[in-house]
Amino acid sequence: MRLKDLGERRIITEIRRRLGGRRRKDVRLGMGDDAAVVRSPKNLVITSDLLVEDYDFRKALHPPRLLGRKSLNVNLSDIAAMGGRPLHAVLGLALPRQTDWKWLSEFFRGFREASHRARVVLVGGDFSEARRIMISVTVTGSAETFVPRSRARPGDFIYVSGSLGDAAAGLRLLKSGRRRGKGRAVSPLLKAFLDPAPRLELGSLLARKKLASAMIDVSDGLTIDLTHICEESEVGAEVELCRIPLSGALRRFSKNPLPLALNGGEDFELLFTVRPGDVPRLRRLSRRFKITAIGRITAGNRILAVDAAGRKKPLKIRGYEHFKS
Amino acid sequence: MRLKDLGERRIITEIRRRLGGRRRKDVRLGMGDDAAVVRSPKNLVITSDLLVEDYDFRKALHPPRLLGRKSLNVNLSDIAAMGGRPLHAVLGLALPRQTDWKWLSEFFRGFREASHRARVVLVGGDFSEARRIMISVTVTGSAETFVPRSRARPGDFIYVSGSLGDAAAGLRLLKSGRRRGKGRAVSPLLKAFLDPAPRLELGSLLARKKLASAMIDVSDGLTIDLTHICEESEVGAEVELCRIPLSGALRRFSKNPLPLALNGGEDFELLFTVRPGDVPRLRRLSRRFKITAIGRITAGNRILAVDAAGRKKPLKIRGYEHFKS
Repeated sequence: MRLKDLGERRIITEIRRRLGGRRRKDVRLGMGDDAAVVRSPKNLVITSDLLVEDYDFRKALHPPRLLGRKSLNVNLSDIAAMGGRPLHAVLGLALPRQTDWKWLSEFFRGFREASHRARVVLVGGDFSEARRIMISVTVTGSAETFVPRSRARPGDFIYVSGSLGDAAAGLRLLKSGRRRGKGRAVSPLLKAFLDPAPRLELGSLLARKKLASAMIDVSDGLTIDLTHICEESEVGAEVELCRIPLSGALRRFSKNPLPLALNGGEDFELLFTVRPGDVPRLRRLSRRFKITAIGRITAGNRILAVDAAGRKKPLKIRGYEHFKS
Repeated sequence: MRLKDLGERRIITEIRRRLGGRRRKDVRLGMGDDAAVVRSPKNLVITSDLLVEDYDFRKALHPPRLLGRKSLNVNLSDIAAMGGRPLHAVLGLALPRQTDWKWLSEFFRGFREASHRARVVLVGGDFSEARRIMISVTVTGSAETFVPRSRARPGDFIYVSGSLGDAAAGLRLLKSGRRRGKGRAVSPLLKAFLDPAPRLELGSLLARKKLASAMIDVSDGLTIDLTHICEESEVGAEVELCRIPLSGALRRFSKNPLPLALNGGEDFELLFTVRPGDVPRLRRLSRRFKITAIGRITAGNRILAVDAAGRKKPLKIRGYEHFKS
C-alpha cells in the first residue's frame, strides 16, 4: 500500500490516530483544528530542525523507525542544551506519493517511542507532497532557568558529556556500505548516528542547579560548537586533546580517532562550561552521568588545541560530512 | 551570487541579521542559540505549514517576495481562524545550492514585511540543503478565548468573510501562462493566489466578542472546510448558492464562477458559524468587515446546496487543484 492509494485525508486521520494526543491536561485542543491550543509555561523554549532526504539521511540506510526517533530527538537535544523540559511537538512531513505505507507506519512508531519517552505530546502538523522526504519538527518546552551559549568566562572549565566521534564513524560505516554490524564492535557506532539519545536529564539538572555557565549540544562537531560558545561569549579556549572522551568502539574502528571526535558532527552530547567554584558540585553528578573536563576557557578569542607534550596549536575548523547527492 | 558560494554559516548570519528580532521585551533569547526563549501567554496557539516547490508553488511563477509573505501569512490565517493573536515564528528553509542570493534576499524581504505587519518576531529556525525549495513555518500566538471547529449547532448561521474563488482563478491564470494581468481585470485574482492576506483582526474580534461558535479558514475550499466544521461539530448544513460572495473580477474571469468558489482552495477567508441570537451583534461588524451569511447549520450530517429555485442537492466534495509535477 502506497500513500497515493490512501489520499491526504486518510493520511492525516492516521497521523492523528497514531500520534495525536489530547489526553494530557495541558493540551486544550490537540491535532485536527486550524491550530493547537496548549497551556504554556511562562518561559517558553522553541526549537526547530529539518531533516532532508539525501542530505541529512539516506532512506535506504536509515530504518524508518529510527528516523522517526531521530527526527524528534535532534530537537530534544536542543531543548536539553538550553536546560529545558520538552512539552509539545509539531510535525511537518512532505513525502513522495510512492512512499510505502509500511515505511510511514514505522516512522510513526519511532516518533511515538521518542515522544513517549520524553513525555512530549504531538499537537499539530502539516502534510504535503514532495519528490524527496522532508521532515520538519518544532518542539516547545519550559525552562525556568535556561543556559545560553553566551555566558562562558575566562577560567571556566569546559566539559562534555558521553564520548565524541561515534556518530561520525557510524556515518562512515554507512557510506562505505557496512550497514550491519559484523559482531559487536561497530553496532554502537551505527546506533550513535542512526538513533542518538538527547541528554535531557543532564541538561535540565545543569540548568536547575545553575552548574553550567554556557551550554550547546554537539551537532556540528566539537570544534564548530566550541567556536559558537567562544564567539557568543567573546572568549577563547584551550582544549587538551588527550582528554577528549573516545569510546572503545571508536578506538577499535580507527587508529586515528581524534579527527572524528573533533570534527564529526551529530554527537548530540552536551558541551558546557563551569565556573571553577562550581566544579566540586558538578563532580557529584559524575556518579550518574559520564562527563569529562576537556579544557579551559581563556581570555582573548583564540581556540587552541593542547597536545600530550603541552604544545599549543590553533584548533582547525572543519565542517562535518553530510550525505551529499 | 549563489548560495553555494556563501556557505551555511553566512546564510544563517544573514537570516539572523535580516529577520532575527530580539528587540521585543517578550523575546528573552532570539535567534542564534540552540533554542529561543520567549515569555509566553498562558493559552498558547501553535500552527505549522509546509510549502513545497512544484506542489504548493512554482518558483518561476511566484515572485520570491510574495512567496516570503505567503509562507508566513498562511500560518497567520490559521491563527486568525482560532481567534488568536500571533506572537512568534520559526522558519525552516531547505534550498538548492544553486539558489540565487537575490532570490533569497527577496524572500526574506517579503517574510519581514508580513511579520512586521502582524507584529510577529522570528525567533529561530533551521537551514538545510535540498533539491527543491521547501519552506516550513511554525507560528505561536495567544488566545485567551479561542474558537474550535467543533461547536457549531443546528440553527447557527454560516458566514464567510471576503469573497471566494479568486485564488483558484488566479492559480488557473498562472497555470495557463497568463502571469501578468492584462489590464485591471485579472490582477486581483493573481494577488489572491500569490499574496493572500490573513484575516487576523476579524478572527480575533469574533473570538473576543464570542460571536463565532465555530470557525475555520478556507484553505482547502469552502466545501471541504465546511465539511470539517460539520464533521467536528456532528451537524449538517445548507448553503444557499446564490449567496456565495463572488468578486467582480471572478465574474469577469468566468461565466461559471461557482465551482471555483465552492471547490477552489487557498482563499484564506474565515468561515464561521453564529448563534441566531448573536446575529444582531455580528451585523455591527459588517460596517468594518465584508461578511456574508451563506446558509444555516442543520441537524443530521448532510451538507446540502440550495439553488435559486429552492432545490436541494448534496454539496459534492472535490479537492482543489494543486500544482502537480
